[in-house]
This record gives sequence, C-alpha cells and structure tokens, in this order.
Amino acid sequence: MSSVQTPAPKPSRLEIIGLSDMPFVNPGDDLTGIILDALKLNNLELVNGDIVVIAQKIISKAEGRCFSLNDVVPSPEAIELAEEVDKDPRLVELILSETRFIARKRPGLIIVESKTGLVHANAGIDQSNIEQSDTEPQALLLPVDADRSAETIRLEIKKLIQVDAGVIINDSMGRAWRRGTVGHTIGCSGVIAVSNQIGDLDLNGRVLQGTEVALADEIAAAASFVMGQADEGRPVAIVRGASHMIGGSDGFKSLLREDNTDLFKDW
Amino acid sequence: MSSVQTPAPKPSRLEIIGLSDMPFVNPGDDLTGIILDALKLNNLELVNGDIVVIAQKIISKAEGRCFSLNDVVPSPEAIELAEEVDKDPRLVELILSETRFIARKRPGLIIVESKTGLVHANAGIDQSNIEQSDTEPQALLLPVDADRSAETIRLEIKKLIQVDAGVIINDSMGRAWRRGTVGHTIGCSGVIAVSNQIGDLDLNGRVLQGTEVALADEIAAAASFVMGQADEGRPVAIVRGASHMIGGSDGFKSLLREDNTDLFKDW
Repeated sequence: MSSVQTPAPKPSRLEIIGLSDMPFVNPGDDLTGIILDALKLNNLELVNGDIVVIAQKIISKAEGRCFSLNDVVPSPEAIELAEEVDKDPRLVELILSETRFIARKRPGLIIVESKTGLVHANAGIDQSNIEQSDTEPQALLLPVDADRSAETIRLEIKKLIQVDAGVIINDSMGRAWRRGTVGHTIGCSGVIAVSNQIGDLDLNGRVLQGTEVALADEIAAAASFVMGQADEGRPVAIVRGASHMIGGSDGFKSLLREDNTDLFKDW
Repeated sequence: MSSVQTPAPKPSRLEIIGLSDMPFVNPGDDLTGIILDALKLNNLELVNGDIVVIAQKIISKAEGRCFSLNDVVPSPEAIELAEEVDKDPRLVELILSETRFIARKRPGLIIVESKTGLVHANAGIDQSNIEQSDTEPQALLLPVDADRSAETIRLEIKKLIQVDAGVIINDSMGRAWRRGTVGHTIGCSGVIAVSNQIGDLDLNGRVLQGTEVALADEIAAAASFVMGQADEGRPVAIVRGASHMIGGSDGFKSLLREDNTDLFKDW
C-alpha cells in the first residue's frame, strides 16, 4: 500500500432537476419554505453537497423588487436617454438608478455596468413573467445583494433540515459577440465560484497555465437550461454531483474581472 | 376529453455523464469508434435524443491539428507581435494564421476574432494536455471546420448504431468582464443551437420580447463542468434530457452575433 493517498476522482455525473409546480411568489413570501415544500411535492430529498439554483426573478419578487412604473418620476437625464433609445422614461429612470456606467446604447437597448459590477442589458430589469397591465406596467429589479439573499436561504436550509447545500442565484444574460442568453451566476453562497487550478498538472504532467474555471457560471448555465425561459415555471433547480465545489466563497464577485485585468471595459 | 392537445412538457431533468477511461487520441484515430467503445466500457447505451459533447482537444488531435513549433517559420509580423506580447514567435505565427482581426493584446495574451468568427484568446491554440518537450514544443490548433467534424461523427453514429443523437464540440473560453473559463460550443450538428422564443408567452400570457436562448452554449457549459480541465481525462460527455433541442441546425455560426448587431466589436 502506498502512503500517498490517491485523490478521490471528481464526480463524472451531473444531474439537474427542475422543480415543477412551484407556486407564484409574492413580496414577503418565505422562499426557503416554498422551496422546501416544492422539494417534497417533487419527491426529492435535499442532501449534503447539493446545489440549489434559484432564478433571480423569484428572489426579486419575494424581496419586493417589483416597481409600478406609475410610481416612478423620471429625471431629465432619464427622459433624454429614453428618447434616444426609444424606451419608457420611467423604465430608464429605474435602469439608471441601478447603473454605475453606461457601456453601450442603441434603440431598444441600454447595456450598463451596474452598481453590483455586472455588465448586462437594461441593468437586468425585466418586464416579463410578472403581472402586467397596460395601465399599471411593472418592472422587476435585481436583488439589492444577491449574495446575501443566497446566504440567507442557505442558512435557513441548514437550520430547518440540517443539510449543507450550496445556493446559486442565476439570471439569463446576453454575451458579447455571441447570440442568445445563457444563465449566469449573480449571487451565491457556500460554493467555490471560480476554481483556481493554476499549478494543477495536465494529462502529460505539464503545469496548466492560468486555468481558472468559472464553475458557478457553468452550473448556472446548466440550471438555466432546465428552468427554461418562457412558460415552464421552473424557477428552482437542484444540482447533484457538484459537491466538490461546496465550500467558502467570496460570493459572485469572484466571478467579476477586476478592472485592471479587463481588456473590454472601455467606458 | 379536449380536442386541443396539451403540448408535452419540456423535460425537467438533465443528466450529464462524463465517459471515463478514454484512451489518448492520436492523429488519424477513428474518434467515432473510440467514443462508441468508451460508451460500452462505461456501460452506457446511447439513445435517440442524447447529445454527445466532445472536447475540442480530441477532435483537433484526431484531425492532426497538432503542430511542432520547430516546423514553424515566423513571419516578420509574428516576430514583432511576439516581442510585444512576450510569446514564442512561432506560436504567434500559428495564432496569426488562424486570425481575421486582433481584438486586444497585452503581454501573455492575444485575443482575436478568428477566421471562424470566434472571439477568443490565442485563437484557441493550446499547449496543455498534449505531449510536450522543451526541445520539441507542440501546439494544438482548433479544427478547421468543427461543424463538419460534428456532422461526420453524428452521421457515423447514425450509420453504425442507428441512433439519432446530436453532437456538440465544446471548448473552454474566457469571457469579457467575467473571470474564469466556461465551456462554449465551437461546432455542432443535429441540434438547435439557439432557441428563438420570440412570440412565446410568459407565465402571465405576455409575449416574451427578444428571448433567444443559446441552448447549445448552456449544454456546452454543463458538459465542460463534467469534463474538467486538468487531469480528469474525460473529453466526452453524454447529455440526456435535452431531446427537444435535437433538430436541424445552422451549426455553431448561429451562435455568433452578426457584425451589424454586435455592440462590442470595436476592432
């Protein structure tokens, strides 16, 4: 027997299960309770090492981040920009309230670096999948601090059912140069979001150069595939087989490039 | 009984299985045969609707895209750029041979828009996970036409075992603004790469605006998570539960933004 322990192989099987029949979420709802109830309904038992991926929309709804545009008074800056990009000035006011820098704009679209550091269209503000009427239009803003939202749910799960699970909050985002949205992590707790494998050896014993893998974004993308975008109504997915990424985390900010290493922040 | 048929719900469960114990791949190898053998070894039966995700590296190896730097004669342009970015001029020559435009450069890094339309570091050329020696350094280029590579394997699978599977070739790529690599599709066959859901209804019966989902990139990311980067040696993953994206495809190019809709191509 060797005295050197062989490291356990990483799991080769990943399973993503979208919870069905979730109820509508309203401001102030107990999201952890709703998720635990949905797990029971879906005959699923959460186990240590699972990752619970939650769509940003239901986090935002539960946290009361839905605003009626009729209650928004646009600033002169918002009115001017709204005209330029052909959007509702009240919506533009909400976008600007979330924005650190405007990265790009064109009719129908404002891409911003938001105050959280995310670079995304319309500061992630959405008008789909929330109750709407022509006279009372609504807009849903991102959570104020999605890492904290994730942490709260992770700790409640731990307290209520004594399971160590990671929590990721994901949102569909467009990308530079590539078409279509992909799920990205906008908040997380209890997961290693970026694996820093610098120093690991490749198959030929050569040191891997600069390989950092955005594990949490790969999981967010996989979960997004199962959640769907339109009328599927599956805003929570359980990811099984990724327990090696459970651990302390700096939150989603570890997924953001620092400004001095970013070659594409030209604003 | 209603005369209107309820559409079948999209699968809520996605499974990604990384094949273990794959052999090293060499130029000219029969990759389809290798994959089918590995499936048997892993006690897995491929079924209609499965998607076979294959790491770019073994496609490139099988297609003889490995070059010895000693055989490369750098051009004056490559020598000048190599000095600027502190890279081997022979490697820079290979990068330039794949490049349409240089997007960004800094010491250690050249980000290009390659002739295939991909925007990525070093034109996707890699020196890890291939046999190396200090006196005989090697570099692995991307497949010449990864859509065709995917199609060939898809048709061979169909012919040999009569299974209708999709094929995606993925590669780890960095992103603007976000840290860490994520698996992206660089070639595909028999899959709908981008779902155009424009016109679909959201949960509240509101028409979803402009929601195109990069399904193939979400699958490529999920598969990449299972494949790993370093010494895991799992370059093939079977994705089960995504049969709704099996279908005709324009290949990976449907994942690229057209130049006139791209706000971040400033080169």
